[in-house]
Amino acid sequence: MNVRRKKDAYFGSSAGMPGPLTVYIKRRVKFSEADVMGIVWHGRYPEYFEEGSAELGRRYGLSYKDFYEAQLRAPIVQLHIDHFKPLFLDEEFTIKASLIWNEGARLNTEYSLIKEGGDIAASGYTVQMFIDEVSSDVLIASPKILEKCRRRWKAGEFA
Amino acid sequence: MNVRRKKDAYFGSSAGMPGPLTVYIKRRVKFSEADVMGIVWHGRYPEYFEEGSAELGRRYGLSYKDFYEAQLRAPIVQLHIDHFKPLFLDEEFTIKASLIWNEGARLNTEYSLIKEGGDIAASGYTVQMFIDEVSSDVLIASPKILEKCRRRWKAGEFA
Amino acid sequence: MNVRRKKDAYFGSSAGMPGPLTVYIKRRVKFSEADVMGIVWHGRYPEYFEEGSAELGRRYGLSYKDFYEAQLRAPIVQLHIDHFKPLFLDEEFTIKASLIWNEGARLNTEYSLIKEGGDIAASGYTVQMFIDEVSSDVLIASPKILEKCRRRWKAGEFA
Amino acid sequence: MNVRRKKDAYFGSSAGMPGPLTVYIKRRVKFSEADVMGIVWHGRYPEYFEEGSAELGRRYGLSYKDFYEAQLRAPIVQLHIDHFKPLFLDEEFTIKASLIWNEGARLNTEYSLIKEGGDIAASGYTVQMFIDEVSSDVLIASPKILEKCRRRWKAGEFA
Repeated sequence: MNVRRKKDAYFGSSAGMPGPLTVYIKRRVKFSEADVMGIVWHGRYPEYFEEGSAELGRRYGLSYKDFYEAQLRAPIVQLHIDHFKPLFLDEEFTIKASLIWNEGARLNTEYSLIKEGGDIAASGYTVQMFIDEVSSDVLIASPKILEKCRRRWKAGEFA
Repeated sequence: MNVRRKKDAYFGSSAGMPGPLTVYIKRRVKFSEADVMGIVWHGRYPEYFEEGSAELGRRYGLSYKDFYEAQLRAPIVQLHIDHFKPLFLDEEFTIKASLIWNEGARLNTEYSLIKEGGDIAASGYTVQMFIDEVSSDVLIASPKILEKCRRRWKAGEFA
Repeated sequence: MNVRRKKDAYFGSSAGMPGPLTVYIKRRVKFSEADVMGIVWHGRYPEYFEEGSAELGRRYGLSYKDFYEAQLRAPIVQLHIDHFKPLFLDEEFTIKASLIWNEGARLNTEYSLIKEGGDIAASGYTVQMFIDEVSSDVLIASPKILEKCRRRWKAGEFA
Repeated sequence: MNVRRKKDAYFGSSAGMPGPLTVYIKRRVKFSEADVMGIVWHGRYPEYFEEGSAELGRRYGLSYKDFYEAQLRAPIVQLHIDHFKPLFLDEEFTIKASLIWNEGARLNTEYSLIKEGGDIAASGYTVQMFIDEVSSDVLIASPKILEKCRRRWKAGEFA
């Protein structure tokens, strides 16, 4: 198995594909997040990713509430994190989260946690699929809520 | 990028290689771990993996305390989780954690979270490297503490 | 204000009142629960209390599921913790939780976290009230589910 | 025992005593903080209090780092929370934290979590004492770091 760590571009891209939708969030490491070495325990990183993902959702019409109103759930089916440098207690860092264009019935999101000097502390990705709240079926085709987002994305409305 | 989810065998094996060291832990989903859908939020899974990993460490001489006494740290540099089925509030499930044989200066661990009926809720892996507490260098060769574990492992003392 | 810390008996008792219903849970401090001093961060203690409270509920017919089926919620309206000694990383300790008899429309629970040698790390209490899931009203009279528990408690069926 | 819930003024005041030092933090309920009822689980409130307390510390020279440099620890020895109304998933609320004047070797802090319309979701307090990192003794007299803060506080430098 390949355990080489990547810092970016987990999902491939091709010519003509719209660029990623990206948000940045400034954040400070809280006391309750530091472990006995004074660094953030690895198991808290999904929470940081989630903060980025939630902001993407709010900004681009794909929030938890948007899915709830569309009677959909969007569970994470895959999570991957590569760690490079620790984040220290009280350190200020930036969460970067990017929605990567794809045409399937899923959301591909990439993340980086960026230290103050610009070094990458960790990067990773999540994949979300869609489940119909009523039938409990996994959606094969993209839901309307996502199609709408993609139309606006492709039209450059989010630029 | 390959986003196919695997249920097992993230790390390859070859003939003659010692089999994995495996622990099983019974666990119940706590109220504080369930989200608004009544299922465990994906960001709590690294904690479940850690419970398995800690038990492996205690049993095979690779615990946090063992590393501390050897003036080493063993940070997780890669984490991967594939989700298949939800875990529900109050559900009893089993954490399976397996140390996979390898000869490099690292620990490869695989995990499965198994639902009561035997279905796999999620699986994944972690990779840990070693850092000298004094010099802050990443170890290129396996530390003594790991060599000792591997000698006993190969000799069948853990069977 | 009184900030003297108590180790026990937060709720008064009187002659003829049935004794507390008590559970004990053995537990070990997890790596993810220790802070930079190698001790449990105070904000994780409510989780320990909850583990005791959940076990009380399961054993005496007052679990989350029991309330759910009775279309009730039992929110905590008051929480108090007195800290005496730290709990250390990897330390084994005991959660003691006791339901204290009272005749009002509420649950009074006392907790102690007991270190291996018998010293008390922390003690405290919670008060829960009842809310009708349909009307959202706070219950003035004890719900049936609690009355049933008290009848059996008074009759000595839990001894 | 008194289980009446208070909304404020847990610590008494007297004429001529300097007023509290107060900070306000805007915050939104994260997905990972909501329970199966879609409200914040009570065990997460100490984390909210801590966010207020950390901001007080940073602003008034009593941060974790300030104590660390003075070779002191300032553990919480008492925590109390009164709950009035739930905080909902995605709700924006305000953390109010106030350092209350006292002349002993301790920190008294009061907290309120304020809903958007101004209602109080919860209030409470913490008491911290000081421990000498070297001798492990509890300080009987206020440490210099606190005396310095109080001199400036009394002189109105923080107003």
